[in-house]
Amino acid sequence: MAKIALTGIKPTGNPHIGNLLGAIKPALKIAEKYHALYFIADYHALTSVKDKQALHQQIYGVAATWIAAGLDPEKVVFYRQSDIPEVFELSWILSCFTPKGLLNRAHSYKAAVDNNLQNQNDPDMGVNMGHYNYPILMAADILMFNSNVVPVGQDQRQHLEMTRDIAHWFNQNYKKILVIPEALIQDNVKTIPGIDGRKMSKSYHNEIPLYVPSKQLKKKVMQIVTDSKEVHEPKDPENCNLFSIYKLFAEEKEIQTTHQQYLDGGLGYGQLKQALFELIDTFVNEGRERYDYYMNHTELLDQILLEGASKARKIATPLLKTIRQTIGIEK
Amino acid sequence: MAKIALTGIKPTGNPHIGNLLGAIKPALKIAEKYHALYFIADYHALTSVKDKQALHQQIYGVAATWIAAGLDPEKVVFYRQSDIPEVFELSWILSCFTPKGLLNRAHSYKAAVDNNLQNQNDPDMGVNMGHYNYPILMAADILMFNSNVVPVGQDQRQHLEMTRDIAHWFNQNYKKILVIPEALIQDNVKTIPGIDGRKMSKSYHNEIPLYVPSKQLKKKVMQIVTDSKEVHEPKDPENCNLFSIYKLFAEEKEIQTTHQQYLDGGLGYGQLKQALFELIDTFVNEGRERYDYYMNHTELLDQILLEGASKARKIATPLLKTIRQTIGIEK
Repeated sequence: MAKIALTGIKPTGNPHIGNLLGAIKPALKIAEKYHALYFIADYHALTSVKDKQALHQQIYGVAATWIAAGLDPEKVVFYRQSDIPEVFELSWILSCFTPKGLLNRAHSYKAAVDNNLQNQNDPDMGVNMGHYNYPILMAADILMFNSNVVPVGQDQRQHLEMTRDIAHWFNQNYKKILVIPEALIQDNVKTIPGIDGRKMSKSYHNEIPLYVPSKQLKKKVMQIVTDSKEVHEPKDPENCNLFSIYKLFAEEKEIQTTHQQYLDGGLGYGQLKQALFELIDTFVNEGRERYDYYMNHTELLDQILLEGASKARKIATPLLKTIRQTIGIEK
Repeated sequence: MAKIALTGIKPTGNPHIGNLLGAIKPALKIAEKYHALYFIADYHALTSVKDKQALHQQIYGVAATWIAAGLDPEKVVFYRQSDIPEVFELSWILSCFTPKGLLNRAHSYKAAVDNNLQNQNDPDMGVNMGHYNYPILMAADILMFNSNVVPVGQDQRQHLEMTRDIAHWFNQNYKKILVIPEALIQDNVKTIPGIDGRKMSKSYHNEIPLYVPSKQLKKKVMQIVTDSKEVHEPKDPENCNLFSIYKLFAEEKEIQTTHQQYLDGGLGYGQLKQALFELIDTFVNEGRERYDYYMNHTELLDQILLEGASKARKIATPLLKTIRQTIGIEK
């Protein structure tokens, strides 16, 4: 039987081109080799999103995006964290096996504390318990489904280590019930440059949005920052952000031609931006149609996600029963 | 409609006479005035009980004790915390509205930290996250059932204040969904002396066990500590632990007679211990038979507790749905 790979997706507003190429596409490739589970960590988002409408729309937005990007709910298991009540019960169980000292050492918590101390505030100012407890909920998310591998970026490696530690302690106290997951480090993950040349990121406000109307997409592409060389001047393809982004979407032959035009002069940035816009517009078009369709039929998203939850609970429900029996809560 | 009163019961080994008179009997009286819910906090016990058999037996033991002591599962709602999955999901939701600073100020956590610091250990040594998070789970236990009043001893007052704070913050962010509970301070709670004269408590090893065979009960009563006055000597009824315990079980007329015999001399401690044993043995006899019956038919306890859980979930399930809709997790 294929090993189980679990991918968590935090619903964080509208995904951009950088998310698609740098995270979503590589994550979807996992399903070729593993029995792949993908879940929307909506209760993780609650640690920061306290606005009802915003949370609701972000959940649908991320669900529609992943389906538009190629996730096939028939072939993988796609569900919302909040549709698996077993996860929250397991989270409590695991908390009884988690030393508080472990969470004190979590990078994201320590960063918040450092920031508070620098500003001469109480070390825990602004830290809520959802934030602090998150590594435990993540452990429950992973362990509830016998996950063998978990694709993680650098920022999540420590959390996965914590999951492994907690599972070890539990297994050691009772017996080997919990599967200890391995990190799946994705090495060929591209960093996608934003319109200002830094890594594309919502926090830099430099993102090219993904499934938006052509007009809005064009406006953003036209804002890509370049130097001020005129049409006739030779340009440096190695140090041009516009060319870097262009390379992500153009065919090899087009790239070579454009490269030569840069060196020779005669190609204006505006002209290349127009070409790039058309490439991206074509590239996202099919996904955008699917995205718009699902965002206009959120009842279909609910149906897909509930079916996914029902498949996921086929693993979670019997495993939780075994765990309850193992700890003495159930006969 | 009667107000809802919620009583939590921690399953902690075999209850003793002090528990019955000082806690269980007063708690059962609440059902005369309120719509009373009683729950066994089995997942609370998991913070300290990591032995499968021990936890399992303690849960049944406490269930059988309360039924033996007069709890009528037909008239009140009697359930296990672990049979209400909604509580654990709510616990996560509430954690997102609980500042970490609040939990840092919990008395029981601070006591653990102080103890560690005195012994020059890491402040969080030996503290697990179940222990640290417990005030949040308790808030979920209470808020999940629209509890109007919660009978609390002095040691739980702060936790109830925390519950009120968390509920306020939630209501303030969205709208008034959660019922803010009031503390029900029970003023005429007796302190029951143990066999050594100190408050009867498992931690002092001075308890008179409750529903045990007569022989075992007698042995313990015979161990009640007295001074070494002989039979013929006058004795001091005001400063005699044996007499204090005797007063809890004897009729007013017997108490007066014995009081006089103390002053006059001629009554031996051994003789009074025998009389006290017979009084307690009669007092607990009916309950002991019920207790033994249920401990020999734990499948009946399961049935009673599952029926209780099903009644309790009639409150929890729709309330959790409303909460999910309020925060944007559900449509």
